[in-house]
Amino acid sequence: MKKNLLAATFLIVLLLLVKLSSAQNKIVVFQSDFGLKDGAVSAMKGVAMGVSTDLKLYDLTHEIPAYNIWEASYRLEQTVRYWPAGTVFVSVVDPGVGTARKSVVLKTKSGHYIVTPNNGTLTLIAASLGIDEIREIDEAVNRRKDSQKSYTFHGRDVYAFTAARLAAGVISFEQVGPVLPKQVVSIPFQQAVLTGKTIKGNIPVLDVQYGNVWTNIPDTLFKQLDPKVGDMVNVTISYKNKQVYTGTMPYCQTFGAVAEGKPLAYLNSLLQVSFALNMGDFAKTNNVASGGDWSVEVRLK
Amino acid sequence: MKKNLLAATFLIVLLLLVKLSSAQNKIVVFQSDFGLKDGAVSAMKGVAMGVSTDLKLYDLTHEIPAYNIWEASYRLEQTVRYWPAGTVFVSVVDPGVGTARKSVVLKTKSGHYIVTPNNGTLTLIAASLGIDEIREIDEAVNRRKDSQKSYTFHGRDVYAFTAARLAAGVISFEQVGPVLPKQVVSIPFQQAVLTGKTIKGNIPVLDVQYGNVWTNIPDTLFKQLDPKVGDMVNVTISYKNKQVYTGTMPYCQTFGAVAEGKPLAYLNSLLQVSFALNMGDFAKTNNVASGGDWSVEVRLK
Amino acid sequence: MKKNLLAATFLIVLLLLVKLSSAQNKIVVFQSDFGLKDGAVSAMKGVAMGVSTDLKLYDLTHEIPAYNIWEASYRLEQTVRYWPAGTVFVSVVDPGVGTARKSVVLKTKSGHYIVTPNNGTLTLIAASLGIDEIREIDEAVNRRKDSQKSYTFHGRDVYAFTAARLAAGVISFEQVGPVLPKQVVSIPFQQAVLTGKTIKGNIPVLDVQYGNVWTNIPDTLFKQLDPKVGDMVNVTISYKNKQVYTGTMPYCQTFGAVAEGKPLAYLNSLLQVSFALNMGDFAKTNNVASGGDWSVEVRLK
Repeated sequence: MKKNLLAATFLIVLLLLVKLSSAQNKIVVFQSDFGLKDGAVSAMKGVAMGVSTDLKLYDLTHEIPAYNIWEASYRLEQTVRYWPAGTVFVSVVDPGVGTARKSVVLKTKSGHYIVTPNNGTLTLIAASLGIDEIREIDEAVNRRKDSQKSYTFHGRDVYAFTAARLAAGVISFEQVGPVLPKQVVSIPFQQAVLTGKTIKGNIPVLDVQYGNVWTNIPDTLFKQLDPKVGDMVNVTISYKNKQVYTGTMPYCQTFGAVAEGKPLAYLNSLLQVSFALNMGDFAKTNNVASGGDWSVEVRLK
Repeated sequence: MKKNLLAATFLIVLLLLVKLSSAQNKIVVFQSDFGLKDGAVSAMKGVAMGVSTDLKLYDLTHEIPAYNIWEASYRLEQTVRYWPAGTVFVSVVDPGVGTARKSVVLKTKSGHYIVTPNNGTLTLIAASLGIDEIREIDEAVNRRKDSQKSYTFHGRDVYAFTAARLAAGVISFEQVGPVLPKQVVSIPFQQAVLTGKTIKGNIPVLDVQYGNVWTNIPDTLFKQLDPKVGDMVNVTISYKNKQVYTGTMPYCQTFGAVAEGKPLAYLNSLLQVSFALNMGDFAKTNNVASGGDWSVEVRLK
Repeated sequence: MKKNLLAATFLIVLLLLVKLSSAQNKIVVFQSDFGLKDGAVSAMKGVAMGVSTDLKLYDLTHEIPAYNIWEASYRLEQTVRYWPAGTVFVSVVDPGVGTARKSVVLKTKSGHYIVTPNNGTLTLIAASLGIDEIREIDEAVNRRKDSQKSYTFHGRDVYAFTAARLAAGVISFEQVGPVLPKQVVSIPFQQAVLTGKTIKGNIPVLDVQYGNVWTNIPDTLFKQLDPKVGDMVNVTISYKNKQVYTGTMPYCQTFGAVAEGKPLAYLNSLLQVSFALNMGDFAKTNNVASGGDWSVEVRLK
C-alpha cells in the first residue's frame, strides 16, 4: 500500500517533469501588412492568448507594403530558418480575402509551420525549405467561435486562432484539415544563372533601412567567377530591360574597406551578392527598387 | 511517521501543481502615444518586469497620435474584447498629466482591467463592455519607489507599476485604491441613428494602413434597411456639415467583388458599415478623415 | 530502502522547486538601427529562441537613426536602469562591422549586461552605472554554428547568440571571453556646468514623439539656482555657437500650467531640465535638433 503511494508520488513528479520538458516550443511568430497603428495585430495576439497563455508570441514584421505578397514571401524566406523547428508562423497579406484562395498550413521539411492564404506567400519558402506536407484549414472546426458573421478578418478569426491551437498542442497538424497536393501557388521570378563569365539575377528586395541592394545571386554561384577580396566587379541594374545603373566597385568583406559614400559589392547575411554605399544609401542614390521587373548583371572586370 | 512524510510530499507536489495551474493570466497589454523611437515604452516594461518576471507583456499600439484621447478610446474598444478575461491594459495618452485628472483602474463587466488617466480614454469601452467597478489609484501605495521627484512620467511610475502589480497578484483589485462612482469621463460623439430610410452616423476612425473608412453604424442597424449583397448604397460624408464626398457603391462581402480602384461598402471586422476602394485608398483619394466632426449618411438606392 | 525512496522523492521535488525559483531573470532586451520593416530583428530573436525557449525577449527600440552611435548610447542610458538587475541588453548600431572594433559585454555595477560593439555605444551607460567588468566576446566559442561565412550580420550570429546564452545560463559571464581593461570607447560630449548664475549644457536628444527638447542638466545642478515653480527662465539654444533660439518661459511641474502653444521649462522623467510647448512641438517650431554640436544656456530671469 505504501509502495503504491510512493509509486504514485513518483509518477506524479515524473509526469510533471515530463510535462515541463517535453512541451512543444509554443512559439507563434506573426507577419502582416497591417502596420502597428491600430489594434489589428493586438487582436490577433489576444485571440492566441485566449487559446493558451503559455504561448510565446513574437513578430516578424507588420510593415509589409499593403497587398505585397512578393515581399511577404521574401520576409519569410529571410527569417523562418533562424527560428527553432516547431515554430508556427502566421502570415496575413491577403488582398483576395473572401475570394476562392485557400487557407493553408505548410509544414516545411525543416519542421516549421506557416499559416497563410495560399496566394503566393509561400513561393520562396516552399522552394528553399521544401514541402513536407500542406493542409487546407477546415474552417468548420478551426475558426474562432461566434466569428461567422465577420467577413473580412480571417487573420484574427482563422489564421491566428489556428496557429495558436497548433502551437499550443490543442490540435495536431492532422487536425488542421485535409491534405493538399505538395505544391503551392507561386509567383514567377527570374532565377540566378551563370552564362559564360556573366551572372544574371534579380533584385528580390532592398535592405530598406540602409538602402542596400540585395540580389538573388548566391555566394556559391558568385564563387564560380573566382572573385578575390578587392577585385573590381562590373554591375548593371535594369528595370524592364532598361538600364538604370552601371558601375564598377570592389568586392569587400566590410563596408569600411571603401571610403564614405563609395560603392562596394559584398555578401549579405543570407550570403547573396549585394551592393551598398559605405555610410550611404545605394538604392536611393541610384533610383534602384526591387521586384520581379528588376534584373542585374554581374561580372568581374 | 512515514505516512506524514508521504503526506507532506503529496502536499508539496499538489501545491506546486496548483501554483502552476491557478496562476492569473499575468498578461499586461500596453497602449500609448509615445511611439517606438525612444526608450519610454521599454522603461515601462522594465518596471513591470521588476515587479514580476512571470508577467507576459504585449502591446496594443504606441502610435496613437500625440494627445489624441479619442483614438486611444477607439483602439481599446477595437481590441480589448479579443484578449482573455483578466488581462490588464495600460493606456497612457495623457495630455493632462500633472493636472487634476484622476488615475483609475476600470474593471469591465467582461473581467478586463484598464489602467489609465480618467480623461475620456474610457469613453467607448465603458459603454460597450460595462463598468463592473472603477477605483482610483492610491499613489501613496501604488507608485514606484523613489519616483516622487519625477513629475511627468506617470506611465512608468504609476500606471505600468500598478498594472504589473495587479496582473502579478501582488495587489488585489481592492488594493488599487478607493472605489469611485460607476461613471467615467466621456467624450461626446454622435450615435448611429435610423430616420426613415436614412442612417446617420459618424466616422470614429480610419483603417489607416489601407485607407478604408469605418463608421459607427452596426450591422444590426444597417440590416434594418434590408440590404442584399450587390445592392447599391448611397453614401454622403460631411465635415462639420459641409459635404466632402457623395457617391454610390455596391454592398459587398469581399473586396474582390469590384474592379481594382472601385468603391464598395462592406462590414468590417467589428461588423460596422465601412467604405473602401478595392486595392486603393478611399480616405486619401476622397480627402476623408475621422473624428467627432465627421458625419456620414447611408441609404439604399 | 523505503526511506531512501522517500528521500529521493523529496530531493527531486526540491530540485524542481529550486530550478523554478532560482532561475536567472532570463530577459534579453534588443536595440538596433535595423527598423522593423524587414526580418533582421526577428532573425535575432529566432536565434535567441533557438538557444532557449525559456527566454523572454523584449525591445528597447529599433528606430535608432542608421549608424547613430550617440543615440544608441543615449537610449541605453535612458532605459537600462528601469529593468531588473541581470537583464541582458543587445545593442547593434555598428557602422564599423567587420573592422577592428571589439565585440564586448559590459557588466555594470548595477548588475546589468550590455552586449555590443565597443564603438561608443557604451559612452553614457558606463559613466552613469559604472563598469563592474568588461569582457571581449571570444567568437571562436560564442558564435552561431555555421555562420562563419557570413561577414555582415554580427547582430544575429554573435551578439544575439551570446546574449541569449548568457541570459539562459548556458555560459557564465566568465565564459564570454577574456577580461578587458575597465574602460570603454567614449564619444566626447559637453558636460553640464554652472558658472556664476548660468548653467551651460548640451541637448543630447529630443523627445521625438512630442518635440520636447531635453538637456543634460540634472535637477541637482538646476536646484542650485534655487528655482521656484512659476519662476521665469531665460533659455538660449545654439548650434555650433550660433544662436538658434532665445526666449523666456515659466518653470512648471505640469504642461497644463501654461496655455496651449506656450513654452515651459520642466524636469523630464530623467529629472533633467527640458523645454516644451504645451500641446505643441518645441523642436520643430523653433528648428532645434540634438547632438554634440547643440548647446544650451539657462538662467533665472
